[in-house]
Amino acid sequence: MSGLFITFEGPEGAGKSTNIKVFAQALAQAGHAPLTTREPGGTPVAERIREVLLSVHDEPMHADTELLLMFAARAQHLNGLIRPALAEGRIVISDRFTDATYAYQGGGRGIDPRRIAALETWVQGELRPDLVLLFDVPVDVGIARARARSELDRFEQEHRSFFEQVRNTYLERAAADPARYRIIDASGNLEQVHREMQPVIEEVLERVGG
Amino acid sequence: MSGLFITFEGPEGAGKSTNIKVFAQALAQAGHAPLTTREPGGTPVAERIREVLLSVHDEPMHADTELLLMFAARAQHLNGLIRPALAEGRIVISDRFTDATYAYQGGGRGIDPRRIAALETWVQGELRPDLVLLFDVPVDVGIARARARSELDRFEQEHRSFFEQVRNTYLERAAADPARYRIIDASGNLEQVHREMQPVIEEVLERVGG
Repeated sequence: MSGLFITFEGPEGAGKSTNIKVFAQALAQAGHAPLTTREPGGTPVAERIREVLLSVHDEPMHADTELLLMFAARAQHLNGLIRPALAEGRIVISDRFTDATYAYQGGGRGIDPRRIAALETWVQGELRPDLVLLFDVPVDVGIARARARSELDRFEQEHRSFFEQVRNTYLERAAADPARYRIIDASGNLEQVHREMQPVIEEVLERVGG
Repeated sequence: MSGLFITFEGPEGAGKSTNIKVFAQALAQAGHAPLTTREPGGTPVAERIREVLLSVHDEPMHADTELLLMFAARAQHLNGLIRPALAEGRIVISDRFTDATYAYQGGGRGIDPRRIAALETWVQGELRPDLVLLFDVPVDVGIARARARSELDRFEQEHRSFFEQVRNTYLERAAADPARYRIIDASGNLEQVHREMQPVIEEVLERVGG
Protein backbone atom coordinates (compact mmCIF):
# COMPACT_ATOMS: atom_id res chain seq x y z
CA MET A 1 0.00 0.00 0.00
CA SER A 2 1.28 3.43 -0.79
CA GLY A 3 -1.61 5.68 0.25
CA LEU A 4 -2.66 8.81 -1.58
CA PHE A 5 -1.20 12.25 -0.91
CA ILE A 6 -3.62 15.12 -1.60
CA THR A 7 -2.85 18.78 -0.99
CA PHE A 8 -5.15 21.81 -0.76
CA GLU A 9 -3.55 24.97 -2.10
CA GLY A 10 -4.57 28.57 -2.49
CA PRO A 11 -4.28 32.00 -0.87
CA GLU A 12 -5.64 33.19 2.46
CA GLY A 13 -9.40 33.51 2.30
CA ALA A 14 -9.87 30.79 -0.30
CA GLY A 15 -11.72 28.61 2.21
CA LYS A 16 -9.23 25.73 2.26
CA SER A 17 -9.57 24.86 5.95
CA THR A 18 -13.38 24.72 5.81
CA ASN A 19 -13.43 22.69 2.64
CA ILE A 20 -10.74 20.27 3.75
CA LYS A 21 -13.16 19.15 6.49
CA VAL A 22 -15.98 18.62 4.00
CA PHE A 23 -13.64 16.70 1.71
CA ALA A 24 -12.28 14.48 4.50
CA GLN A 25 -15.78 13.82 5.79
CA ALA A 26 -16.91 12.61 2.37
CA LEU A 27 -14.00 10.18 2.30
CA ALA A 28 -14.73 9.05 5.86
CA GLN A 29 -18.36 8.38 4.93
CA ALA A 30 -17.10 6.11 2.17
CA GLY A 31 -15.20 4.10 4.79
CA HIS A 32 -11.74 5.67 4.63
CA ALA A 33 -9.72 7.18 7.47
CA PRO A 34 -8.04 10.20 5.90
CA LEU A 35 -5.38 12.05 7.86
CA THR A 36 -5.79 15.82 7.62
CA THR A 37 -2.86 18.07 8.45
CA ARG A 38 -1.43 21.47 7.55
CA GLU A 39 1.71 23.35 6.60
CA PRO A 40 3.75 24.92 7.88
CA GLY A 41 3.21 22.71 10.92
CA GLY A 42 1.52 19.37 11.48
CA THR A 43 3.81 18.09 14.26
CA PRO A 44 4.99 19.72 17.53
CA VAL A 45 8.42 20.73 16.19
CA ALA A 46 6.98 21.91 12.87
CA GLU A 47 4.36 23.99 14.69
CA ARG A 48 7.18 25.69 16.66
CA ILE A 49 8.81 26.54 13.34
CA ARG A 50 5.44 27.82 12.08
CA GLU A 51 5.34 30.28 15.00
CA VAL A 52 8.73 31.68 13.97
CA LEU A 53 7.55 31.93 10.36
CA LEU A 54 4.28 33.74 11.06
CA SER A 55 5.48 36.06 13.84
CA VAL A 56 6.41 39.65 13.18
CA HIS A 57 10.06 40.14 14.25
CA ASP A 58 12.39 43.00 15.21
CA GLU A 59 14.21 42.63 11.90
CA PRO A 60 13.08 41.69 8.41
CA MET A 61 13.31 37.97 7.76
CA HIS A 62 15.57 37.28 4.76
CA ALA A 63 13.82 35.40 1.94
CA ASP A 64 16.38 32.57 2.12
CA THR A 65 15.74 32.20 5.86
CA GLU A 66 12.01 32.00 5.27
CA LEU A 67 12.45 29.38 2.56
CA LEU A 68 14.77 27.24 4.69
CA LEU A 69 12.37 27.45 7.64
CA MET A 70 9.52 26.30 5.39
CA PHE A 71 11.55 23.29 4.30
CA ALA A 72 12.74 22.61 7.88
CA ALA A 73 9.10 22.40 8.99
CA ARG A 74 8.34 20.26 5.92
CA ALA A 75 11.18 17.82 6.64
CA GLN A 76 9.75 17.26 10.12
CA HIS A 77 6.17 16.97 8.87
CA LEU A 78 7.11 14.61 6.06
CA ASN A 79 9.31 12.28 8.09
CA GLY A 80 7.30 12.39 11.29
CA LEU A 81 3.73 12.25 9.95
CA ILE A 82 3.14 12.15 6.18
CA ARG A 83 5.50 9.36 5.09
CA PRO A 84 4.50 7.00 7.93
CA ALA A 85 0.78 7.55 7.15
CA LEU A 86 1.29 6.98 3.42
CA ALA A 87 3.30 3.85 4.22
CA GLU A 88 0.24 2.55 6.09
CA GLY A 89 -1.81 3.11 2.94
CA ARG A 90 -3.75 6.09 4.30
CA ILE A 91 -5.07 9.07 2.40
CA VAL A 92 -3.19 12.15 3.63
CA ILE A 93 -4.73 15.58 3.01
CA SER A 94 -2.49 18.56 3.76
CA ASP A 95 -3.62 22.18 3.91
CA ARG A 96 -0.70 23.49 1.82
CA PHE A 97 2.57 21.88 0.78
CA THR A 98 5.42 22.72 -1.58
CA ASP A 99 3.22 24.41 -4.19
CA ALA A 100 2.68 27.11 -1.58
CA THR A 101 6.45 27.52 -1.34
CA TYR A 102 6.71 28.10 -5.08
CA ALA A 103 3.78 30.52 -4.90
CA TYR A 104 4.78 32.53 -1.80
CA GLN A 105 8.56 32.35 -1.61
CA GLY A 106 9.01 31.99 -5.39
CA GLY A 107 6.24 34.13 -6.91
CA GLY A 108 5.72 36.41 -3.91
CA ARG A 109 9.30 36.93 -2.71
CA GLY A 110 11.00 36.41 -6.05
CA ILE A 111 13.27 33.47 -5.15
CA ASP A 112 14.43 31.67 -8.30
CA PRO A 113 12.26 28.54 -8.67
CA ARG A 114 15.38 26.50 -9.45
CA ARG A 115 16.68 27.27 -5.95
CA ILE A 116 13.33 26.09 -4.54
CA ALA A 117 13.48 22.95 -6.67
CA ALA A 118 16.94 22.15 -5.26
CA LEU A 119 15.59 22.21 -1.69
CA GLU A 120 12.44 20.34 -2.74
CA THR A 121 14.55 17.42 -3.96
CA TRP A 122 16.92 17.71 -0.98
CA VAL A 123 14.00 17.36 1.48
CA GLN A 124 11.44 15.26 -0.40
CA GLY A 125 13.48 13.08 -2.72
CA GLU A 126 10.95 11.89 -5.32
CA LEU A 127 7.86 12.46 -3.18
CA ARG A 128 5.26 14.82 -4.73
CA PRO A 129 1.51 15.14 -4.05
CA ASP A 130 -0.61 12.74 -6.09
CA LEU A 131 -3.33 15.34 -6.44
CA VAL A 132 -3.43 19.10 -5.78
CA LEU A 133 -6.72 20.97 -5.32
CA LEU A 134 -6.03 24.61 -6.12
CA PHE A 135 -8.63 26.89 -4.52
CA ASP A 136 -8.56 29.88 -6.81
CA VAL A 137 -10.08 33.21 -5.87
CA PRO A 138 -9.58 36.75 -7.18
CA VAL A 139 -6.95 38.54 -5.09
CA ASP A 140 -9.33 41.18 -3.71
CA VAL A 141 -11.85 38.60 -2.59
CA GLY A 142 -9.16 36.58 -0.78
CA ILE A 143 -7.72 39.63 0.95
CA ALA A 144 -11.16 40.87 2.04
CA ARG A 145 -12.07 37.46 3.48
CA ALA A 146 -8.74 37.10 5.31
CA ARG A 147 -9.06 40.62 6.78
CA ALA A 148 -12.59 39.97 7.97
CA ARG A 149 -11.42 36.88 9.81
CA SER A 150 -8.67 37.85 12.22
CA GLU A 151 -5.52 39.77 12.90
CA LEU A 152 -3.13 39.60 9.94
CA ASP A 153 0.03 37.49 10.24
CA ARG A 154 3.38 38.33 8.66
CA PHE A 155 2.30 37.03 5.24
CA GLU A 156 -1.16 38.54 5.30
CA GLN A 157 0.42 41.97 5.78
CA GLU A 158 1.96 41.82 2.30
CA HIS A 159 0.90 44.12 -0.52
CA ARG A 160 -1.60 43.39 -3.25
CA SER A 161 1.12 42.75 -5.85
CA PHE A 162 2.56 40.00 -3.63
CA PHE A 163 -0.76 38.17 -3.72
CA GLU A 164 -1.09 38.70 -7.48
CA GLN A 165 2.24 36.93 -7.90
CA VAL A 166 1.14 34.16 -5.53
CA ARG A 167 -2.03 33.59 -7.54
CA ASN A 168 -0.25 33.70 -10.90
CA THR A 169 2.35 31.19 -9.77
CA TYR A 170 -0.31 28.80 -8.51
CA LEU A 171 -2.22 29.04 -11.81
CA GLU A 172 0.94 28.58 -13.89
CA ARG A 173 1.89 25.45 -11.97
CA ALA A 174 -1.63 24.05 -12.38
CA ALA A 175 -1.61 24.79 -16.11
CA ALA A 176 1.77 23.09 -16.55
CA ASP A 177 0.64 19.79 -15.00
CA PRO A 178 -3.12 19.28 -15.48
CA ALA A 179 -2.88 15.59 -14.60
CA ARG A 180 -2.06 16.44 -10.98
CA TYR A 181 -3.95 19.72 -10.44
CA ARG A 182 -7.68 20.40 -10.10
CA ILE A 183 -8.66 24.07 -10.05
CA ILE A 184 -11.57 24.81 -7.72
CA ASP A 185 -13.34 28.12 -8.28
CA ALA A 186 -13.48 29.32 -4.67
CA SER A 187 -15.09 32.70 -5.30
CA GLY A 188 -18.64 31.47 -4.71
CA ASN A 189 -20.47 30.53 -1.52
CA LEU A 190 -19.79 27.31 0.40
CA GLU A 191 -22.45 25.35 -1.44
CA GLN A 192 -21.06 26.35 -4.82
CA VAL A 193 -17.55 25.38 -3.76
CA HIS A 194 -18.79 22.00 -2.50
CA ARG A 195 -20.31 21.37 -5.92
CA GLU A 196 -16.93 22.22 -7.47
CA MET A 197 -15.23 19.69 -5.19
CA GLN A 198 -17.71 16.87 -5.81
CA PRO A 199 -16.13 15.46 -9.00
CA VAL A 200 -12.72 15.47 -7.30
CA ILE A 201 -14.11 13.53 -4.33
CA GLU A 202 -15.54 10.97 -6.75
CA GLU A 203 -12.25 10.76 -8.59
CA VAL A 204 -10.37 10.13 -5.34
CA LEU A 205 -12.83 7.44 -4.25
CA GLU A 206 -12.36 5.73 -7.61
CA ARG A 207 -8.58 5.84 -7.21
CA VAL A 208 -8.56 4.40 -3.72
CA GLY A 209 -11.38 1.97 -4.47
CA GLY A 210 -14.20 3.13 -2.31
CA MET B 1 37.82 46.27 1.65
CA SER B 2 36.62 42.76 2.21
CA GLY B 3 37.17 42.28 5.94
CA LEU B 4 38.33 39.07 7.55
CA PHE B 5 36.01 36.27 8.64
CA ILE B 6 37.32 34.24 11.59
CA THR B 7 35.42 31.41 13.27
CA PHE B 8 35.94 29.70 16.63
CA GLU B 9 35.04 26.03 16.56
CA GLY B 10 35.07 23.20 19.05
CA PRO B 11 32.81 21.22 21.38
CA GLU B 12 30.99 22.38 24.50
CA GLY B 13 33.45 23.02 27.30
CA ALA B 14 36.34 23.96 25.01
CA GLY B 15 36.31 27.53 26.31
CA LYS B 16 35.39 29.22 23.02
CA SER B 17 33.21 31.96 24.47
CA THR B 18 35.80 33.02 27.05
CA ASN B 19 38.65 32.98 24.56
CA ILE B 20 36.73 34.81 21.86
CA LYS B 21 36.63 37.79 24.24
CA VAL B 22 40.39 37.64 24.84
CA PHE B 23 41.00 37.36 21.12
CA ALA B 24 38.70 40.28 20.22
CA GLN B 25 40.23 42.42 22.95
CA ALA B 26 43.71 41.85 21.57
CA LEU B 27 42.52 43.01 18.14
CA ALA B 28 40.75 46.02 19.68
CA GLN B 29 43.93 47.00 21.52
CA ALA B 30 45.69 47.03 18.14
CA GLY B 31 43.13 49.55 16.90
CA HIS B 32 40.59 47.30 15.17
CA ALA B 33 36.85 47.06 15.82
CA PRO B 34 36.10 43.36 15.52
CA LEU B 35 32.49 42.21 15.50
CA THR B 36 31.93 39.16 17.69
CA THR B 37 28.87 37.03 17.16
CA ARG B 38 27.69 33.43 17.56
CA GLU B 39 25.85 30.59 15.86
CA PRO B 40 23.19 29.46 15.82
CA GLY B 41 21.95 33.00 16.40
CA GLY B 42 23.52 36.41 16.07
CA THR B 43 20.38 38.33 15.02
CA PRO B 44 16.85 38.45 16.51
CA VAL B 45 15.32 36.03 13.99
CA ALA B 46 18.33 33.69 14.14
CA GLU B 47 18.16 33.66 17.96
CA ARG B 48 14.50 32.61 17.73
CA ILE B 49 15.59 29.73 15.51
CA ARG B 50 18.33 28.91 18.05
CA GLU B 51 15.66 28.52 20.74
CA VAL B 52 13.83 25.96 18.59
CA LEU B 53 17.12 24.13 17.93
CA LEU B 54 18.25 23.91 21.56
CA SER B 55 14.89 23.20 23.20
CA VAL B 56 13.83 19.71 24.14
CA HIS B 57 10.55 18.94 22.27
CA ASP B 58 7.61 16.53 22.57
CA GLU B 59 8.88 14.59 19.56
CA PRO B 60 12.37 13.78 18.29
CA MET B 61 13.67 16.38 15.85
CA HIS B 62 14.53 14.73 12.51
CA ALA B 63 18.18 15.21 11.50
CA ASP B 64 17.12 16.92 8.23
CA THR B 65 14.97 19.37 10.20
CA GLU B 66 17.87 20.21 12.49
CA LEU B 67 20.19 20.76 9.55
CA LEU B 68 17.73 23.00 7.70
CA LEU B 69 17.13 25.03 10.88
CA MET B 70 20.88 25.51 11.29
CA PHE B 71 21.14 26.82 7.75
CA ALA B 72 17.99 28.96 8.15
CA ALA B 73 19.61 30.68 11.14
CA ARG B 74 22.85 30.96 9.15
CA ALA B 75 21.14 32.56 6.15
CA GLN B 76 19.72 35.24 8.44
CA HIS B 77 23.00 35.76 10.29
CA LEU B 78 25.02 35.90 7.09
CA ASN B 79 22.76 38.27 5.19
CA GLY B 80 21.75 40.42 8.14
CA LEU B 81 25.05 40.75 10.00
CA ILE B 82 28.16 39.00 8.69
CA ARG B 83 28.14 40.02 5.01
CA PRO B 84 27.37 43.70 5.76
CA ALA B 85 30.19 43.83 8.35
CA LEU B 86 32.69 42.16 6.01
CA ALA B 87 31.63 44.58 3.26
CA GLU B 88 32.62 47.43 5.60
CA GLY B 89 36.05 45.82 5.96
CA ARG B 90 35.54 44.67 9.53
CA ILE B 91 36.97 41.61 11.22
CA VAL B 92 34.07 39.30 12.07
CA ILE B 93 34.60 36.61 14.72
CA SER B 94 31.85 34.03 15.04
CA ASP B 95 31.53 31.50 17.85
CA ARG B 96 30.79 28.56 15.50
CA PHE B 97 29.83 28.44 11.84
CA THR B 98 29.47 25.75 9.16
CA ASP B 99 32.31 23.58 10.48
CA ALA B 100 30.08 22.94 13.47
CA THR B 101 27.36 21.74 11.11
CA TYR B 102 29.73 19.23 9.54
CA ALA B 103 30.87 18.14 13.01
CA TYR B 104 27.46 17.91 14.76
CA GLN B 105 24.92 17.15 12.05
CA GLY B 106 27.43 15.31 9.83
CA GLY B 107 29.75 13.51 12.26
CA GLY B 108 27.35 13.42 15.20
CA ARG B 109 24.04 12.68 13.45
CA GLY B 110 25.47 10.87 10.46
CA ILE B 111 24.13 13.12 7.67
CA ASP B 112 26.10 12.59 4.45
CA PRO B 113 28.60 15.49 4.18
CA ARG B 114 27.66 15.89 0.50
CA ARG B 115 24.11 16.77 1.56
CA ILE B 116 25.58 19.38 3.97
CA ALA B 117 27.84 20.73 1.23
CA ALA B 118 24.79 21.20 -1.04
CA LEU B 119 23.10 23.42 1.57
CA GLU B 120 26.38 25.21 2.35
CA THR B 121 26.65 26.34 -1.26
CA TRP B 122 22.91 27.08 -1.46
CA VAL B 123 23.13 29.43 1.56
CA GLN B 124 26.67 30.80 1.42
CA GLY B 125 27.59 30.76 -2.25
CA GLU B 126 31.39 31.02 -2.23
CA LEU B 127 31.73 32.51 1.26
CA ARG B 128 33.88 30.47 3.66
CA PRO B 129 35.75 31.56 6.83
CA ASP B 130 39.22 32.98 6.14
CA LEU B 131 40.54 31.40 9.33
CA VAL B 132 39.16 28.75 11.70
CA LEU B 133 40.46 28.36 15.27
CA LEU B 134 39.63 24.83 16.34
CA PHE B 135 39.57 24.52 20.14
CA ASP B 136 40.39 20.88 20.64
CA VAL B 137 39.82 19.11 23.92
CA PRO B 138 39.50 15.43 24.86
CA VAL B 139 35.84 14.41 24.87
CA ASP B 140 35.71 13.63 28.59
CA VAL B 141 37.22 16.97 29.55
CA GLY B 142 34.72 18.87 27.38
CA ILE B 143 31.73 16.95 28.74
CA ALA B 144 32.86 17.42 32.34
CA ARG B 145 33.30 21.17 31.86
CA ALA B 146 29.91 21.54 30.12
CA ARG B 147 28.17 19.58 32.88
CA ALA B 148 29.76 21.66 35.59
CA ARG B 149 28.50 24.84 33.93
CA SER B 150 24.73 24.62 33.58
CA GLU B 151 21.70 22.57 32.65
CA LEU B 152 22.32 20.53 29.51
CA ASP B 153 20.61 21.56 26.25
CA ARG B 154 19.35 19.15 23.58
CA PHE B 155 22.84 18.68 22.12
CA GLU B 156 24.64 18.42 25.45
CA GLN B 157 22.37 15.48 26.34
CA GLU B 158 23.90 13.34 23.58
CA HIS B 159 26.02 10.28 24.30
CA ARG B 160 29.79 10.07 24.45
CA SER B 161 30.07 8.47 20.99
CA PHE B 162 28.26 11.49 19.50
CA PHE B 163 30.96 13.81 20.86
CA GLU B 164 33.73 11.46 19.69
CA GLN B 165 32.33 11.79 16.16
CA VAL B 166 32.08 15.57 16.55
CA ARG B 167 35.71 15.80 17.61
CA ASN B 168 36.93 13.44 14.88
CA THR B 169 35.09 15.38 12.19
CA TYR B 170 36.54 18.68 13.38
CA LEU B 171 40.06 17.23 13.39
CA GLU B 172 39.63 15.66 9.95
CA ARG B 173 38.47 18.95 8.47
CA ALA B 174 41.41 20.79 10.05
CA ALA B 175 43.88 18.19 8.77
CA ALA B 176 42.45 18.45 5.24
CA ASP B 177 42.93 22.23 4.98
CA PRO B 178 45.84 23.36 7.20
CA ALA B 179 46.03 26.74 5.45
CA ARG B 180 42.69 27.77 6.95
CA TYR B 181 42.65 25.91 10.28
CA ARG B 182 44.65 26.52 13.48
CA ILE B 183 44.29 23.86 16.16
CA ILE B 184 44.31 25.27 19.69
CA ASP B 185 44.98 22.77 22.45
CA ALA B 186 42.19 23.76 24.84
CA SER B 187 42.79 21.13 27.50
CA GLY B 188 45.00 23.37 29.65
CA ASN B 189 44.13 26.28 31.91
CA LEU B 190 43.16 29.72 30.59
CA GLU B 191 46.71 31.03 30.61
CA GLN B 192 47.98 28.06 28.61
CA VAL B 193 45.19 28.49 26.06
CA HIS B 194 45.98 32.21 25.72
CA ARG B 195 49.57 31.29 24.93
CA GLU B 196 48.27 28.88 22.27
CA MET B 197 46.20 31.70 20.73
CA GLN B 198 49.00 34.27 20.72
CA PRO B 199 50.63 33.30 17.39
CA VAL B 200 47.19 33.30 15.72
CA ILE B 201 46.48 36.81 17.03
CA GLU B 202 49.82 37.96 15.60
CA GLU B 203 49.05 36.28 12.29
CA VAL B 204 45.68 38.03 12.08
CA LEU B 205 47.19 41.42 12.91
CA GLU B 206 49.74 40.88 10.15
CA ARG B 207 46.99 40.02 7.66
CA VAL B 208 44.86 43.04 8.46
CA GLY B 209 47.84 45.33 8.85
CA GLY B 210 47.83 46.26 12.49
